[in-house]
Amino acid sequence: MSEQITLAANERLDDLMTESGLKIIQSREVFSFSLDAVLLSRFASIPKHGRIVDLCTGNGVIPMLLTTRTNAKIDAVEIQPRLADMARRSVELNQLTEQITVIEQDLKLYPKLAGNGIYDAVTVNPPYMPVTAGEQNENEHYAIARHEIHCTLEDVAEACSRLVRPGGKVSMVHRPSRLLDIVETMRKWRLEPKRIQFVHPHANAEANMVLIEAMRDGKPDIKLLPPIMVYENGVQIV
Amino acid sequence: MSEQITLAANERLDDLMTESGLKIIQSREVFSFSLDAVLLSRFASIPKHGRIVDLCTGNGVIPMLLTTRTNAKIDAVEIQPRLADMARRSVELNQLTEQITVIEQDLKLYPKLAGNGIYDAVTVNPPYMPVTAGEQNENEHYAIARHEIHCTLEDVAEACSRLVRPGGKVSMVHRPSRLLDIVETMRKWRLEPKRIQFVHPHANAEANMVLIEAMRDGKPDIKLLPPIMVYENGVQIV
Repeated sequence: MSEQITLAANERLDDLMTESGLKIIQSREVFSFSLDAVLLSRFASIPKHGRIVDLCTGNGVIPMLLTTRTNAKIDAVEIQPRLADMARRSVELNQLTEQITVIEQDLKLYPKLAGNGIYDAVTVNPPYMPVTAGEQNENEHYAIARHEIHCTLEDVAEACSRLVRPGGKVSMVHRPSRLLDIVETMRKWRLEPKRIQFVHPHANAEANMVLIEAMRDGKPDIKLLPPIMVYENGVQIV
Repeated sequence: MSEQITLAANERLDDLMTESGLKIIQSREVFSFSLDAVLLSRFASIPKHGRIVDLCTGNGVIPMLLTTRTNAKIDAVEIQPRLADMARRSVELNQLTEQITVIEQDLKLYPKLAGNGIYDAVTVNPPYMPVTAGEQNENEHYAIARHEIHCTLEDVAEACSRLVRPGGKVSMVHRPSRLLDIVETMRKWRLEPKRIQFVHPHANAEANMVLIEAMRDGKPDIKLLPPIMVYENGVQIV
């Protein structure tokens, strides 16, 4: 690693456990990435070349992991200045500034600024909970990452639909409890679900994550992939 | 078994592998039950007492299997005279005439004849394929069981919705490729999906069946149950 980057107080460098030795800036003061982001970055159908956008990118973990799978240019859109700054510094640290561009922007405004249908693929790990559901964390950064404060599921689907080209793919990770809303909202925005994969903590547990990929203007024809079990005999296997 | 029943030509008696020694009349000339019916009869939430109706009952396998789990009265509705007759004779054979009533009727007409909201639970293993999809079997009995010739998914959802009481359960087995249609159609008929379970041939295969249970007038809140794997190391385990 030849780049010098500055870590702010309470920030740390975590290893992304990739062969290329990617590192990421994290902090307890803001939302850290978790398994859902890692699984989405493996699940998403992405082109080898072309353009990808990751919405709700947070500290940029998904774009960084995607660089291990593609040479496409990746735009990373984040509304929170603190997280966008962390993402930008992580990209510099990993010398990925040629491939990843961090854009501090509200995803609701972004399609008008960027243009319609300019991406071959979209990935998004949006806030999971409606504003009305559950107690919100007092820490604003956590609350924004978890609750639909700045964007609802509908906002996310609309932005994805506008940004992706016809035939392009939109991949999302979310909670299974929201599955039916996700499917209905995607279809409303001409995103036809094509691949669904459930993630279970272990073989005898209910699913606690769902990976879903839609095609812009696709025909109805969905596949239910083999489920992912995170733990086997108490040992994490993914 | 004290009852004498008459087997028609080309009919045979199969054992349902229950502790109570249930037997069922089957024939190559008509559609035989398969694993989907067995899994639905295990999956469905049913009351210990009260009234249950099984639509598209075929040769009556689901009502017969349900008798191992409940004392509720079960009505079994089948449109095809040949199958309704087989179901009726199987019920007699197993001395279940007190608990199961076979009704030869079109499910589209049945709610008007039976009444609205009179059942605590509904089970249904409907035809999976639209009339336009795939080649139809020349055998009319098979074609009717597999293709939406006499009832579409919409007809099935409407009948279920009319027959079940508010808060009652509707359980269905179907193909995963139809999942999104099923969910949308159920919701249109005020059947809110509450439990979904996918069935995979083995741990690394796509799902080829889906079990789905909805509650009449229920609140949105869905659970994705642990998946069912039919084979493990090449041996059927369910």
